[in-house]
Amino acid sequence: MRIFGGRATVELTTRICSCLCTEPGRADIFKFSNDNTFVRILESVRDDDVFVVQTSCPPVDEALVELLIMVDALKRASARRITAVLPYYPYVRSDKKDQPRVPITARLVADLLATAGVDRVVTVDLTADQIQGFFSVPADHLTAQEVLAGHFRAKRLPRPVVVAPDPGAVKRAQRFAQRLGVPVAFVDKRRVGGSEEVKATAVVGDVTGCQAILFDEEVDRGGSSMEALGLLRERKVDAAYLACTHAVLSGPAVERLAGSGLSEVVVTDTVPVPPAKRWDRLTVLSVAPLLAEAIRRVHTGESVSVLFT
Amino acid sequence: MRIFGGRATVELTTRICSCLCTEPGRADIFKFSNDNTFVRILESVRDDDVFVVQTSCPPVDEALVELLIMVDALKRASARRITAVLPYYPYVRSDKKDQPRVPITARLVADLLATAGVDRVVTVDLTADQIQGFFSVPADHLTAQEVLAGHFRAKRLPRPVVVAPDPGAVKRAQRFAQRLGVPVAFVDKRRVGGSEEVKATAVVGDVTGCQAILFDEEVDRGGSSMEALGLLRERKVDAAYLACTHAVLSGPAVERLAGSGLSEVVVTDTVPVPPAKRWDRLTVLSVAPLLAEAIRRVHTGESVSVLFT
Amino acid sequence: MRIFGGRATVELTTRICSCLCTEPGRADIFKFSNDNTFVRILESVRDDDVFVVQTSCPPVDEALVELLIMVDALKRASARRITAVLPYYPYVRSDKKDQPRVPITARLVADLLATAGVDRVVTVDLTADQIQGFFSVPADHLTAQEVLAGHFRAKRLPRPVVVAPDPGAVKRAQRFAQRLGVPVAFVDKRRVGGSEEVKATAVVGDVTGCQAILFDEEVDRGGSSMEALGLLRERKVDAAYLACTHAVLSGPAVERLAGSGLSEVVVTDTVPVPPAKRWDRLTVLSVAPLLAEAIRRVHTGESVSVLFT
Amino acid sequence: MRIFGGRATVELTTRICSCLCTEPGRADIFKFSNDNTFVRILESVRDDDVFVVQTSCPPVDEALVELLIMVDALKRASARRITAVLPYYPYVRSDKKDQPRVPITARLVADLLATAGVDRVVTVDLTADQIQGFFSVPADHLTAQEVLAGHFRAKRLPRPVVVAPDPGAVKRAQRFAQRLGVPVAFVDKRRVGGSEEVKATAVVGDVTGCQAILFDEEVDRGGSSMEALGLLRERKVDAAYLACTHAVLSGPAVERLAGSGLSEVVVTDTVPVPPAKRWDRLTVLSVAPLLAEAIRRVHTGESVSVLFT
Amino acid sequence: MRIFGGRATVELTTRICSCLCTEPGRADIFKFSNDNTFVRILESVRDDDVFVVQTSCPPVDEALVELLIMVDALKRASARRITAVLPYYPYVRSDKKDQPRVPITARLVADLLATAGVDRVVTVDLTADQIQGFFSVPADHLTAQEVLAGHFRAKRLPRPVVVAPDPGAVKRAQRFAQRLGVPVAFVDKRRVGGSEEVKATAVVGDVTGCQAILFDEEVDRGGSSMEALGLLRERKVDAAYLACTHAVLSGPAVERLAGSGLSEVVVTDTVPVPPAKRWDRLTVLSVAPLLAEAIRRVHTGESVSVLFT
Amino acid sequence: MRIFGGRATVELTTRICSCLCTEPGRADIFKFSNDNTFVRILESVRDDDVFVVQTSCPPVDEALVELLIMVDALKRASARRITAVLPYYPYVRSDKKDQPRVPITARLVADLLATAGVDRVVTVDLTADQIQGFFSVPADHLTAQEVLAGHFRAKRLPRPVVVAPDPGAVKRAQRFAQRLGVPVAFVDKRRVGGSEEVKATAVVGDVTGCQAILFDEEVDRGGSSMEALGLLRERKVDAAYLACTHAVLSGPAVERLAGSGLSEVVVTDTVPVPPAKRWDRLTVLSVAPLLAEAIRRVHTGESVSVLFT
Repeated sequence: MRIFGGRATVELTTRICSCLCTEPGRADIFKFSNDNTFVRILESVRDDDVFVVQTSCPPVDEALVELLIMVDALKRASARRITAVLPYYPYVRSDKKDQPRVPITARLVADLLATAGVDRVVTVDLTADQIQGFFSVPADHLTAQEVLAGHFRAKRLPRPVVVAPDPGAVKRAQRFAQRLGVPVAFVDKRRVGGSEEVKATAVVGDVTGCQAILFDEEVDRGGSSMEALGLLRERKVDAAYLACTHAVLSGPAVERLAGSGLSEVVVTDTVPVPPAKRWDRLTVLSVAPLLAEAIRRVHTGESVSVLFT
Repeated sequence: MRIFGGRATVELTTRICSCLCTEPGRADIFKFSNDNTFVRILESVRDDDVFVVQTSCPPVDEALVELLIMVDALKRASARRITAVLPYYPYVRSDKKDQPRVPITARLVADLLATAGVDRVVTVDLTADQIQGFFSVPADHLTAQEVLAGHFRAKRLPRPVVVAPDPGAVKRAQRFAQRLGVPVAFVDKRRVGGSEEVKATAVVGDVTGCQAILFDEEVDRGGSSMEALGLLRERKVDAAYLACTHAVLSGPAVERLAGSGLSEVVVTDTVPVPPAKRWDRLTVLSVAPLLAEAIRRVHTGESVSVLFT
Repeated sequence: MRIFGGRATVELTTRICSCLCTEPGRADIFKFSNDNTFVRILESVRDDDVFVVQTSCPPVDEALVELLIMVDALKRASARRITAVLPYYPYVRSDKKDQPRVPITARLVADLLATAGVDRVVTVDLTADQIQGFFSVPADHLTAQEVLAGHFRAKRLPRPVVVAPDPGAVKRAQRFAQRLGVPVAFVDKRRVGGSEEVKATAVVGDVTGCQAILFDEEVDRGGSSMEALGLLRERKVDAAYLACTHAVLSGPAVERLAGSGLSEVVVTDTVPVPPAKRWDRLTVLSVAPLLAEAIRRVHTGESVSVLFT
Repeated sequence: MRIFGGRATVELTTRICSCLCTEPGRADIFKFSNDNTFVRILESVRDDDVFVVQTSCPPVDEALVELLIMVDALKRASARRITAVLPYYPYVRSDKKDQPRVPITARLVADLLATAGVDRVVTVDLTADQIQGFFSVPADHLTAQEVLAGHFRAKRLPRPVVVAPDPGAVKRAQRFAQRLGVPVAFVDKRRVGGSEEVKATAVVGDVTGCQAILFDEEVDRGGSSMEALGLLRERKVDAAYLACTHAVLSGPAVERLAGSGLSEVVVTDTVPVPPAKRWDRLTVLSVAPLLAEAIRRVHTGESVSVLFT
Repeated sequence: MRIFGGRATVELTTRICSCLCTEPGRADIFKFSNDNTFVRILESVRDDDVFVVQTSCPPVDEALVELLIMVDALKRASARRITAVLPYYPYVRSDKKDQPRVPITARLVADLLATAGVDRVVTVDLTADQIQGFFSVPADHLTAQEVLAGHFRAKRLPRPVVVAPDPGAVKRAQRFAQRLGVPVAFVDKRRVGGSEEVKATAVVGDVTGCQAILFDEEVDRGGSSMEALGLLRERKVDAAYLACTHAVLSGPAVERLAGSGLSEVVVTDTVPVPPAKRWDRLTVLSVAPLLAEAIRRVHTGESVSVLFT
Repeated sequence: MRIFGGRATVELTTRICSCLCTEPGRADIFKFSNDNTFVRILESVRDDDVFVVQTSCPPVDEALVELLIMVDALKRASARRITAVLPYYPYVRSDKKDQPRVPITARLVADLLATAGVDRVVTVDLTADQIQGFFSVPADHLTAQEVLAGHFRAKRLPRPVVVAPDPGAVKRAQRFAQRLGVPVAFVDKRRVGGSEEVKATAVVGDVTGCQAILFDEEVDRGGSSMEALGLLRERKVDAAYLACTHAVLSGPAVERLAGSGLSEVVVTDTVPVPPAKRWDRLTVLSVAPLLAEAIRRVHTGESVSVLFT
C-alpha cells in the first residue's frame, strides 16, 4: 500500500498517513515556467496498491489535471490498482443538465478519471447520492455527517432545529436532523419576476426560539447562508450555527460569515482552510481518521460500508 | 424517421405517431413458448433515423429486455441512429448506493442501452436530475410538470399549497409550486426506533385551510401519499389533491387512493393506466404531444431545450 | 471463493455448494410491488473470487436481468473477479441472423454480461460451439454429454442408434454417437410448399430394428421429437429414447412426451424440472458435480479442459 | 461511393466495379524490401462511403494485415464509413474452442477489423451462421448457394442427391438440397482407435444409383471429398460432383480432385483460382454480381436481405 | 458549420472566422468564484459540424479543462461532429517516457479529448510527428513552416544557414532549411559531469560569416536559444535570427531575447502574444488563414493534405 | 511465470530462458496447408504471469498475426497477465503521417495487441521515443545502446566520432556519442530536384582523420549507410564502423555492407541473423541478458527503469 498526495492536499495526506503509521509516497510534482505540470514518482510502485489523495480546491483545474497526470504516471509505472481518494469531488455541483446546452462536468470528471487509469474512487459527501452512478468503477461514498454530528451533540443545545438553506438541501439536512434527533425546516427560494435571480422568500417550518443549525454539504460564497440567516432572525431564532462538510469559502464568504453573528461555523478539512480564511468562530474538524480507515479497509478487503452512514 | 413501439407502450406510441401524422413502424414481437422474446422488424430501416418507444411497466424486465433486443435488431439492420424514448425510465429509483452492496440499477440500465446500440435517449421526469449524468450518449430529460400545472391552473383553487410527501421530494415539489406561484410544504419522515421502518412524523410548513396538492414524480404503492394525507387532515387542510407524472400504482395503490377522500388524483400516461386501475376521481393527461414534439425536434435537429422546463 | 445463486437456480446452486462443502452466499433478492428486482449482497465480497449461478428459465427475462443486477451489485461491492455460471445459456437459440432484421440475442446477452461486469463465463452445451466466440472474456464451455452417455452405457442396449431430430443437430448427435460407439442417423425436415412451415420428411440412415436414441442439446416444445418419433416408428424401430441436456419442456412438451410411448426421456437439471413437469419415464441427472468441479478448477487455477469433452 | 481492392482480390474487385460501372479506387500498396506493407490512398476519401474488398488467400496473414492497414489509412483519411467486403472470411474455420487452450481466431479477426476502424462487414458463406454474432458492427452474410444451384438446375440430373462430406456439413448441405428439391445424405466420420485421426466410415442415407453432389462451404485439401468419394463409389453412385463456394484448394487438392473421376467440380471466385489450379472439369462461377448488388444496396440504404437466401 | 473559441484563443478564433466570413459561435464561458469553469452554449448545435478552437497557454490546465467541458456541453447538445482545433497542442513536450515513472501527458491529453467527445483533431507543428499516432480519431497535423519560410525568403539573406539549437531539433530544422534551400547546422548539448544539467558544447556544421536562423518548433524560456547564440557568436556568424511556430515565451524569455542582439525573432500567433510580451524586433505572423482553410476543407470534405507540407 | 516464444524468435527465446534458468513454454504452432496459422498452448496457464516473445522479421505479417493468435489463445486459456516482449517492434518505422492518406501502422499494431489481450509490452530501441505513447497499457522501452557501447569502449579507438546517417537519426546518435564521450556529426540528405528521391549531400561536423561510427537504430537495405560512407571517405575518415540495434538487413544489405570496406558492422540479435547473412566483419551481440532481466523484474515487481538508459 502506498499513498500519494497531490499538491492540493499535502496536509490532509500527511494526516491520513499519520493515522495509518505510514509515510506519503515520494514524488516530484511541479510546474515548469511554461505552466505545464510535471510529475515523477520517486519510488517503485510496480504491482503496488496505490492511493492518490487529491481534493478539489483553487486552482481547481490544476488540481484535477495534476491528479490525472499522477494517475497516468502511476499506471505506466505498473501500479497494480489505483484508487483516487477525492475528499471534495471536482465539479460536484455541475451534476445535471438544468439548462439547455450545458455540460455535466461531474460525469465528465468521472470519465476522465477512468480514462487516466483510476480503478476505484473514494469520496466524501457528494451533493447528490446519484453521482455515485457516474462511475463505472467501484466508488465508496463516505459521509462526514457523523464527524459534524458528534460536535453538535457535545454542545447539548436546548432546542435545536436543522435548517436547510434551500429546497435542494432538504434531503441531506433531514438526514442530519434525524442523526441528531431534532426537527428540520428549510428556506424557500424563488425566482424574482421573470429574471434568473433567485431569492430566499420564506422559512418553511418552526424555528422561533430555537437554535438553528444551517446545514448543507458545502459552503461556497456564503450567500445562501446569509439570506437564510436574515429570514431566521426575522423568525426570531435564539441562535444560529452553520455546519457543512466542504469549506469552499470562495469570494466574500469569510468576510460575510465572520461578520454574520453566527454563533459558530463548523466545517471539515476536506478542502484545506488556510490560516487567512480562519476566524475565531470557525471550527475545522478533520476527516483524516475517516479517510484513513476507508483506505485501510479498501486495502485489506474489509467492508467499507460501516463508513457510509 | 421511423417510430417503433415496444409491447409495453402500444397505445402511447400510437398517440405519438398520430400527433406526428405517421404510422408506427411494423415489427413482429412475441414470446415463444419457452418464454424467449423474438423480434423481427418488418420494414427496411437501413440508414433511417429510428425511435423506439418503450416505457417501464410490469412485467418490467420483459419490457427492458424487449427494448434491448429491438435495438439490437435495428442496429444489425443498419439503422443510422437509434433513439430510445423512455416515458418512464426503468429502475429509476435504484439510482444510488444508499446501503452497502446494492446495485445502481439505473446506471446499469444506461450502460445496457448503450451496449445494445442506443445512440440517444429521451425520457421524462427522472427521480433525480443527476440520472442524466448516467448516460454517455446525449439524453433529453423532458418534464411533464407543465402538463400537470395547466390542469391545476384551470381549477383556480383559492389557497393552494404544494406539499412534498417526503424530504427527498421537496426539490421537485418546490419547482412545481414555483410554476404555479404558490407556497410549498413537506412531510417529514423518520426511522421508528432502531428499525428500518420509516414513518411520516410531521408536516413542515403551513397548510391549515389550504388546498394541498401532494406532488411527486411518481405514485407507486400510495403509502407515502396516505401517510401524508393523514397528517394533512390533522392539520385541517381544506382539500387534498395528488399530482404526479408516473402512475405506477402498484399493489394496494388503487384501492388506497380511490378510498382516500382525495379530491382528485392527476397523473399522465407515461405508464399505461388500464381501465381496471381507473376510478372516477383519477384524471390521466397525455404526454403524447410532448413526446411527439421532442421526437420531431430531435429528428429535424431543432433545439429540444424548450421542452425541458 | 463465494458462490451466489439467482432465484432461478436455487436448488442447483445448493447442490453445487454441497459438492464443494460450502454454503451459498447470502443475498436478499426480491421484487418490489412495482415489479422492480432488488438485490442486496449480505456479506462482504471485497477482493473475493465470486461465482454467480443463474440459469435461463421462465420468466426468462427476469432471470437475466436479476443476474445483471447481481453482477452490478457485486462489482460495486468490489469483488475481485466475477464468474457467471450459466447452466442453460439465455437466448441460446437466437444465435444467428437467419432472417432479415432479426437480432442475434445470444451475442447481445454476452455483451450485456460483460457490460454489467462479468469477468468470465462457465456454461454447458451451447447449441453451437461458435457461441463461445461471442464472448471477449474467457468462457468455459462444458458438456453434459458424458453424464448422459454414462446413463445409456449402463443400459447395455443391444442395437442402439443415435438419431438427430433435424439436420442442424447432426453434428452434436454424431459426437454423442461416437462417445457411445454406435451409428448415427437423422431426420430430414423440409419447408412445406412456399410456406415457412417445416415438416419432418424422412429418416436418413438405418434405424429399423434399432433402439433409437433421439439426441439434441435441448427439448423445448417436443414437436421435433414427436415428428421424429412418428417417422422412426414408420421405419420400425425397436424402441425410442430421448436424451438431451436442457429440459426446457415448454408448452405442450410434457403432455406430448409423457403420452408418446418413448421408453425413457433423459435430461439434466441445467434447467429446473419442477415436480409438475415430471412423469414416470422422465429421468433427471444432475450436472452439479460437473459444475462444482469446474468452479473448483477455475478458482484454483487448474485446467478446466478435461471437462470440455 | 468508392471501392478499393486489396492485392489478394484485384481481379474480383475489377469485376465488381465493372458490374457497378465504376473504377476501383486508386491506391499504392506494396511491400518494402524489409517485408513491411505500405499503403497510400491516392485519392481523397474525406466523408466518402468506402468499401474495401479483400479475400483471404495465401499469404493469408499478409492479406489480413494489408486489409487492416488499408482501413487504418482510410480512417485517418476521414472516410465517412468503411465497409469491409470479405468474400472468403479470414480464419473462418477457427471459430470455436474444440480443444483446450486454442484461440478463436475468427472472433479475433472480427475484433481486429473493428479496432482498425471497420464500420460494417459483408461476407459470403461462413462455415457457421453463428459467426455473424462475432461482430458488434452490422454484418451482411450473403450466400452463393443460389449461384451454385442455378448451375446444377441447368444440368437436369435424373436422380440427384446432395451429400455432406462430414457430419458438421449436414446443415448447409441440407439447405442446398432443399434449394434443389432433392434428398440429402452424409458421410459419417469417426476417430480411429484412441488417436486424433478421423476417418470416413459410412454413408448415412441412400445414394446408390444417384448423381451425388458433394456439397460443402469450401474445399481445402480435398481429403474429405476423396474419402467421401471412395465411400460413395462403394455405394455405387451413378456419378459424383463436388460443389462449394470457396475454392481454397491447398496442398494436394488440385492433383487429388483432377485425378478423382469427379464429373465436375463447381466453385466460385470468392478465392482467386489461378490458371495453374484450373483443370478441364473445374467450373468457376463468379460472385461479382452478388457482391456488386450488395454493395449497391448498402450504399443506397436498400434492404440487403433478399441476398441472404 | 459552427466555430467556437475557448477563452485562451479569442483573438485567433475571431481572425479565423473572419477568414471564413462567419462569426464565432456564442457561448457563456466563465469561472464561478469557487474557481469552477462553467460553459453554456447559447445557440442550437443539434446535428451541426462544430469546431472548437483552443490553444494551450497559461493557465494551461484551465484552458485544457475548459476545452473538455465545452466538448462535453456540445456533445450533450447533440452536435453531429466535434473537431478540436489546437493551434498549440497541450503538453506537447511530455511525449515520451525518458525517465522512470513519468507520465506521457501528451497521450493522456489525446485520450481525454476522445473521452470528452472529440471526433477529430486539427493541430499545428507538433514537437514530433509521432504524436499524431497518439490519436485514434483522425488528426490533421498542419505546419506553419511555410508561413515562416515566406518571411525569410522575402529577406533575400546573402548566406543563410538554418541552425537547430539542440540535437533533437535537427530533423525539423533540416526540413526548414530544405524549404529555403540553404544548409543546416546544429548545436550539440551534453550533460555536465554526472549531473542532470545539460549545456551547449559545440556547433556542428559551418556557420562562420553566415546569417544563422535558429529554428525550432517553439521558444519557451529562451535558454537554448541564448546558449546557441553564444556559441554562434564565438563562431563569428554575420547575424542571427530566431524562427519558431509557437511563442511560449515563458519566464525570462522576453527579457533574454529582447536583449540578445538577435536581428529578429519571428513567431506565429498559435500562442497569443500579448502586447506586454512584444518588442520591436519581434514579428508575429498569423496562422489564421492556414487554420481557416483547414477548417473549410474538413467541413466540405476536401483534401487537407496540401496544408501538411 | 511462463515464457512462450513465437516461431520468429525461437533462438532468442531459448537464450532468454537460459538466462532465467527456465524452459520455454510448450506450444504447438504451425500452418495448415491453407496457410492458416494454428496455435495450441500445451500446458495450463490459468492464472499465470505469461510472457510472449516475438520479434518482427520476414514474413513480418505472419509473425504479427501469430503473436496475436497466441495472445488470444492465452487469454482464453485464462492467463492472469500477458506481456508481449517485442525485441524489434513491428512496423516501427510507419510511425507518422508524413504524406496524405497513409496509415500509422505502428499505432495500429499497438491497438491490435491491446485488442488481442496484451496487458503490457516490453520492447527495445524504438525509432522514436514517442511510440511509447501509442500504448495505453504500460510499456517498457529498453535500449541496447549500452550493449553496443561496451563493445566500442573496449576497442579504445584513438579519435572516434559518432555519425548519424541522416538528419532524423541525430538525436539517438548524439545519445550514443554522449555515452561514449565522443563528438557527433551527421549526414545531410536532400530531395533531388522536384522528385521524391532523397540523396546524401553533405557531412555536417568534423570527421576528417577520425574513426567514424555510423549509428542508427536499425540497418535495413544499407543504402543510407553506403551513401554516408561515400561522403565520409571524401572527407577522409581514418576508418568507418557501423553500429545499430536491429539487423534488418533486407534486400542488397549484406552484399553492400560486406563489400563496403567498413571495418566492422556491430548489431544485436533483436532480429535473428541467419548464417547466410553473416560475414567475417559482422559482430552480433545478444540482448538476451537485457530482456531476461527485464522479464524477471516485471514478474517480481521490481523497477525496470535501470534498463531504460
